[in-house]
Amino acid sequence: MNGADSLCDTLLENDIDVCFANPGTSEMHFVAALDRKPQMRCVLGVFEGVVTGAADGYARMADKPAATLLHCGPGMANGLANMHNARRAHTPMINVVGDHASYHLQYDAPLTSDIESLATPMSDWVRRIASADDVSGAAAAAISAANSGYGAVTTLILPADAAWTETSTPIQKATPAKRTQVSPQALQAATEALNNGRNTVILLSGKALRSKALETAARIAERTGARLMAQQSNGRIERGAGRVKIERVPFSVDLALKALQDTEQLILVGAKTPVAFFAYPGKPGELVPENCKRIELTQPDDDLPDALEALADAVGATNTPISLLAERIDIGLPTGTLDAAAVIQAIGSLLPENAIICDESVTSGRDSFKSTFGSAPHDFLQITGGAIGIGIPMATGAAVACPDRKVVLMQADGSGMYTLQALWTQAREQLDVVTVIFANRSYAILHNEFKQVGAGAPGRNAHRMLDLDNPAFDWVHMANAAGVEAARVTTTAALSDVLRSAMARKGPFLIEAVI
Amino acid sequence: MNGADSLCDTLLENDIDVCFANPGTSEMHFVAALDRKPQMRCVLGVFEGVVTGAADGYARMADKPAATLLHCGPGMANGLANMHNARRAHTPMINVVGDHASYHLQYDAPLTSDIESLATPMSDWVRRIASADDVSGAAAAAISAANSGYGAVTTLILPADAAWTETSTPIQKATPAKRTQVSPQALQAATEALNNGRNTVILLSGKALRSKALETAARIAERTGARLMAQQSNGRIERGAGRVKIERVPFSVDLALKALQDTEQLILVGAKTPVAFFAYPGKPGELVPENCKRIELTQPDDDLPDALEALADAVGATNTPISLLAERIDIGLPTGTLDAAAVIQAIGSLLPENAIICDESVTSGRDSFKSTFGSAPHDFLQITGGAIGIGIPMATGAAVACPDRKVVLMQADGSGMYTLQALWTQAREQLDVVTVIFANRSYAILHNEFKQVGAGAPGRNAHRMLDLDNPAFDWVHMANAAGVEAARVTTTAALSDVLRSAMARKGPFLIEAVI
Repeated sequence: MNGADSLCDTLLENDIDVCFANPGTSEMHFVAALDRKPQMRCVLGVFEGVVTGAADGYARMADKPAATLLHCGPGMANGLANMHNARRAHTPMINVVGDHASYHLQYDAPLTSDIESLATPMSDWVRRIASADDVSGAAAAAISAANSGYGAVTTLILPADAAWTETSTPIQKATPAKRTQVSPQALQAATEALNNGRNTVILLSGKALRSKALETAARIAERTGARLMAQQSNGRIERGAGRVKIERVPFSVDLALKALQDTEQLILVGAKTPVAFFAYPGKPGELVPENCKRIELTQPDDDLPDALEALADAVGATNTPISLLAERIDIGLPTGTLDAAAVIQAIGSLLPENAIICDESVTSGRDSFKSTFGSAPHDFLQITGGAIGIGIPMATGAAVACPDRKVVLMQADGSGMYTLQALWTQAREQLDVVTVIFANRSYAILHNEFKQVGAGAPGRNAHRMLDLDNPAFDWVHMANAAGVEAARVTTTAALSDVLRSAMARKGPFLIEAVI
Repeated sequence: MNGADSLCDTLLENDIDVCFANPGTSEMHFVAALDRKPQMRCVLGVFEGVVTGAADGYARMADKPAATLLHCGPGMANGLANMHNARRAHTPMINVVGDHASYHLQYDAPLTSDIESLATPMSDWVRRIASADDVSGAAAAAISAANSGYGAVTTLILPADAAWTETSTPIQKATPAKRTQVSPQALQAATEALNNGRNTVILLSGKALRSKALETAARIAERTGARLMAQQSNGRIERGAGRVKIERVPFSVDLALKALQDTEQLILVGAKTPVAFFAYPGKPGELVPENCKRIELTQPDDDLPDALEALADAVGATNTPISLLAERIDIGLPTGTLDAAAVIQAIGSLLPENAIICDESVTSGRDSFKSTFGSAPHDFLQITGGAIGIGIPMATGAAVACPDRKVVLMQADGSGMYTLQALWTQAREQLDVVTVIFANRSYAILHNEFKQVGAGAPGRNAHRMLDLDNPAFDWVHMANAAGVEAARVTTTAALSDVLRSAMARKGPFLIEAVI
């Protein structure tokens, strides 16, 4: 076998059997190797932001990494924005980036670039494969790294000569992720805080937001009077009717400061101290009061659900009943004008059981979280790193991971235009995704931010940079171009009709809701 | 004024009056500053690869840089692939990348990333602005750098607090590009080589490929018996009927080796020694014979046309008549099957006077260069760094620079899907671009490369990564979605009709030629 075969076999041996790919010439030996392994599912994205965003959505739902296949520095560069989001979501990911043969780099051929420098800011782990003999060990190390801690984005640079050279190195197994127990000191500090009667917030993220862990956290909260909150952005939350009702830290600095103003103690479970998404003149960077005491209950390698169980034991909450479970509420179908709230109401009302909501609705969907507490139980995946263009790819990857579940994407129009090529992958793979475009035809978030700057009413140049209405992008034509059926709606009645029918059928469908 | 005003004024003071932009929150003060300066033309791209690719196309034709406006590390990351192409074309470019306020970086907010590490591989010059007082000096230094040497891609990182803080620093002027004379040693070496009777190739790139410089080079060639060639990829060539007929080094390693096999001496004028685009087992990296003597006539700061004049003087070619000028040839309209050659023939035949051809036709257009020697005089802009997705943006930028000239884009379908959002900018700005899609519905180049690997016939996984026919992307729907009129053609007669009419009208139009 050659190095490419060795890489393919190492991935499969370690249960990585999906590869989102956009290969180029330097990756042809790996493509040939994949061809010899039909058990590897290869999913083509016709832009690299699709590839990495889909790998993110896949891993969030599959709880294991996918591989990606990217072409040299510029190809990887196209995927960096969604690698950034994945890193912020702590998504495990194995990016395989083909490079020139090692002896060819000296010639500085046109596609040559410094892949390490490009990869490092958006990767938790980077390694260049030294030779064909090094392939399996390097790949196993990447897989070990990806599955360690909260989950890591890894980048493995594969020189073409390492791929095409013969090797007899045995296929390596990755080290299973070690899951450590919560430290006694941290447990004691958290227990004391919860027992001292001060105003305490337990801030959760990562695997602490799965339904069983949330129930444990809810018992602790009810027993001790602490408040539960989730981070502003999280890779995945299990929520909806019958599950723990948990709010997120608001995006707006003013609302977040208000929500956290009385916090004397902050217990972090897989979460970070909340900070402002952007700095604004005269506003603080951290969103908890300056003298708030922070207690890190967990470290990245800790088993978060176990840590919460230990804390529940310590505060005597093991059998505390939970009143925080969301009741199922039929919020009904919207009437009146078609606006963002109406779209959210329709989605919340018509959501099928066990769906996956992907959210890149940005400004339009900011209140959707509250409206859907009582909807059918679902997973909620959101943009985590602020790099827009994750929505359509993430929904694509989630649908690959969970073919039996409906994926519903709430997508802002401005962000959706970044990676609309993912619709083509949805059509090609016949994925069960309903995409709802909030077509406000502007960068609405920037209109708000422009106001915050105190610049008054936007003039000609500002309008030319914030508005998307001239021409209005036609999402129905776009979806059709990619092979996805679609409809445009301008009334609440039409939205409800089309959305009901889209929820009932299988396969990709797009609804452009003009709001 | 604040730092953002200072930046805007510094750009305008130095004759930079076009800004291709995709701003975010951290750039709102700069947007507000641009709003106060209507003389700055702001062109929105709804994806950053559009922004940087358009800035490249603009500068190639305007012979001066545009500014870009990009949002934080991930926003810039989306623009890196076309910054890479621009750097390989030696295009002058000023990328303004907004970042968090300097004191906010410590919080590692979700959008935070190491912009310097990301920017460095695809920039010739990177600087982080230190404060509002530093803005004008830093911007002037960026402009000086961009215009120096063969032309440079520069990245200027603008922290939000540097933008919003008041400053009274005077607006700075950039240093005018110094143009040096060819060194006497280099001139003597080249002169001796041209007079010693050995087999010599004069390899040109950059400004040596403008029509007057090419005429000088042609005189030298005719006087001395040397051969003229252009690099494989170049930012801009002035060519067509009445201009010097010059071949490029072939892309194929085998063809290039054959073309250069007898070369004993290589005189480089703004060019680099030709190397293989990719390494292949058993094939050399450099494309000239090992013992070929290389003479660098010019250094980056040299005035290339002047250097050629000096060389012409030295070899007594100042008044040598030129027989290498291309004659106007009417190649007629294609008949028979609609294939890539037929599309090229139709374009070559119907090209208006003084058009700008942008070429990202990859496999389909590889022979287009020979077919259009005798077409109406035109500028020829091509992909330079192998990072696909430059075509539609580059055509967009070229049309902004030259509103009175027809831009004709020869676009491969696979590459075109990368940055199709640029069509929307063409519609918004009503740019005079005819886009011709070579719709072969596959990554044809990779099918060739797969064969080169010796992997035999592609199997299921390989087909799933190399073919784009399931579903076939519908370019007419896509163009319409973006507000661009379009037509699909499947016969040579229809192509000729539609292309003739597209050439005669103003404004954007797309033709999907199914080949």
